[in-house]
Amino acid sequence: MSEFRYNYLKDTWVIIATERSKRPHDYNVSIYEEPITDISKCPFEYGNEDKTPPEIFAIRPDGSNPNTPGWLTRVFPNRYPALRIENSPISEGYYIFDKKGGFGAHEVIVETPDHFKHIQDFDQQDFINMFITFRERIKSLYNDYRIKYIHIFKNHGKEAGKSLVHSHSQLIALPMIPKQPFTMILQSKKYFLEKERCYTCDEIKLESQLGERVIYENENFISYCSYASLYPFEIKIAPKYHRHDFSTITEDKMKDLADVMRFTVKKLDKTLINPPFNMVLYSAPPYRDDTINKEIFNHINNYFHWHIEILPRITTLAGFELGTDYYINPTPPEEAAKFLREVV
Amino acid sequence: MSEFRYNYLKDTWVIIATERSKRPHDYNVSIYEEPITDISKCPFEYGNEDKTPPEIFAIRPDGSNPNTPGWLTRVFPNRYPALRIENSPISEGYYIFDKKGGFGAHEVIVETPDHFKHIQDFDQQDFINMFITFRERIKSLYNDYRIKYIHIFKNHGKEAGKSLVHSHSQLIALPMIPKQPFTMILQSKKYFLEKERCYTCDEIKLESQLGERVIYENENFISYCSYASLYPFEIKIAPKYHRHDFSTITEDKMKDLADVMRFTVKKLDKTLINPPFNMVLYSAPPYRDDTINKEIFNHINNYFHWHIEILPRITTLAGFELGTDYYINPTPPEEAAKFLREVV
Repeated sequence: MSEFRYNYLKDTWVIIATERSKRPHDYNVSIYEEPITDISKCPFEYGNEDKTPPEIFAIRPDGSNPNTPGWLTRVFPNRYPALRIENSPISEGYYIFDKKGGFGAHEVIVETPDHFKHIQDFDQQDFINMFITFRERIKSLYNDYRIKYIHIFKNHGKEAGKSLVHSHSQLIALPMIPKQPFTMILQSKKYFLEKERCYTCDEIKLESQLGERVIYENENFISYCSYASLYPFEIKIAPKYHRHDFSTITEDKMKDLADVMRFTVKKLDKTLINPPFNMVLYSAPPYRDDTINKEIFNHINNYFHWHIEILPRITTLAGFELGTDYYINPTPPEEAAKFLREVV
Repeated sequence: MSEFRYNYLKDTWVIIATERSKRPHDYNVSIYEEPITDISKCPFEYGNEDKTPPEIFAIRPDGSNPNTPGWLTRVFPNRYPALRIENSPISEGYYIFDKKGGFGAHEVIVETPDHFKHIQDFDQQDFINMFITFRERIKSLYNDYRIKYIHIFKNHGKEAGKSLVHSHSQLIALPMIPKQPFTMILQSKKYFLEKERCYTCDEIKLESQLGERVIYENENFISYCSYASLYPFEIKIAPKYHRHDFSTITEDKMKDLADVMRFTVKKLDKTLINPPFNMVLYSAPPYRDDTINKEIFNHINNYFHWHIEILPRITTLAGFELGTDYYINPTPPEEAAKFLREVV
């Protein structure tokens, strides 16, 4: 059973993932799984639904049965989950240390039945299907009060941690709000208490006026390279209207989001020639009866602004970043945005 | 001129390194520099001292002149520094954002004149020379009151960010205490205020008694896989006696440190077959007349415990780690330690 362990000095948690347990020779061979070139062996293909755990959700416009072909997106548990819903959520002491059972969920979201279609080739409807799937999984999982935070991300390219070629995202549902989103919540709250405004609303309004870091915008959404981008060519995509919770998005607004995503990802792909990247969704956790520290999360709907980040992996995080949590970015965001804006 | 920019939501700083400025095609070619196979072209060889900026420090037992052969270790400014001592340390506002001039220092520490000798081949004296060099640079740089923190690290292997093959470490001196060491200081202080004991002293005593996560120890030093290791096969090396500041180390104690380092690095190299890793030194910043937040850093000598971390880069940091600052470690530290302890 996997477990969480608390790193006291660095004030963060690590999942010791025994389900994925690796001995030294597992690392020696290769740190990446082989891409599957024989698509009949790919577990994410039509007809191979029995090669994955049973599906949890799928978009099936033809009304086909679960675990059969006909789906446009398909969600199932990760075969080697970092966390499991069956594990204990109990917190325990161990000498001077703290640990917790590996309770949570770890799901795979296959975004297209097409083995050869990657995110830079997605059309508007592919993005809409992907976002509907994200939304439905978030809404469903937060019904379990033991789940405090849902993290959805995509690893694109092997340098970004992708292990299977067929396009997919992952969802990890956690019994705590992780360190980074927690910091973002506290910082947003600090700004709100001082100014009675949302930080991200202010940032978006300013960037839209200045223009130099903007990549693309339409009525409801904007993509830009933020002023203090930690990674070269880092991109933020956010609604221009204030909303804390991604899962409240309507199909109408989703069209504008899909439009911005499609143009932005294509521009990134052309500018850097198919770069590896991670995509991350930040959305406010629910404010519920069981929320701990109610005084912190009170009014989270006013001060948190959901958004997506695209983090290109074209430099290597090294001893500076790993040891300080500061970053070195060799491309000023305004230059990155200019390249991205101008590429055709 | 490079500059620091503050990322408000993530509460961290990024160095926008214009000296290393990269346009899209710089990333397209390769994210790593080519290893130099013709050693006559390596700027870290005897006779090539004029291919680096002038040296700042060197160990020269033969009394040879600066910038000539004869050295055992040699330190000079990075040719493409992230920070410069000539840059302004001034803090400025920019609309809603905060920035600071790129003041600091960025040095290269060549640890051996031998192009083919890597850290896993270092003998006891090589390690002693390396640590003397670290110590002397730290002592010298902290004489500049504008420098608030010195970060020394080594990138070993290209997946760990190494760009030139010849063995070297880097030193970055900063005008602020970075996020991660600052957290470690605050956490150590919290523990000390509660228990009147040093957290790391307690951890070392416990691990030494339990034994299952210990790799190697002698009279004064210990190496072990810490309970909440963020990376598989992560290793901590620390003095068994309490000391906050690495730069106070005597030559006598350094022998024991070199002994632990040599055995530990060799064991890691054998167990994982020359894995890439980052090595990081954590040492308390000085408590001086100009220290800001004196009430925080008061008694830092009592509560901070200097140590070294070795972070193997055999898994890929992906969308989970980058988006949450939590970690997934697929090898329990007690298993990693067993492999490392038993390898011959």
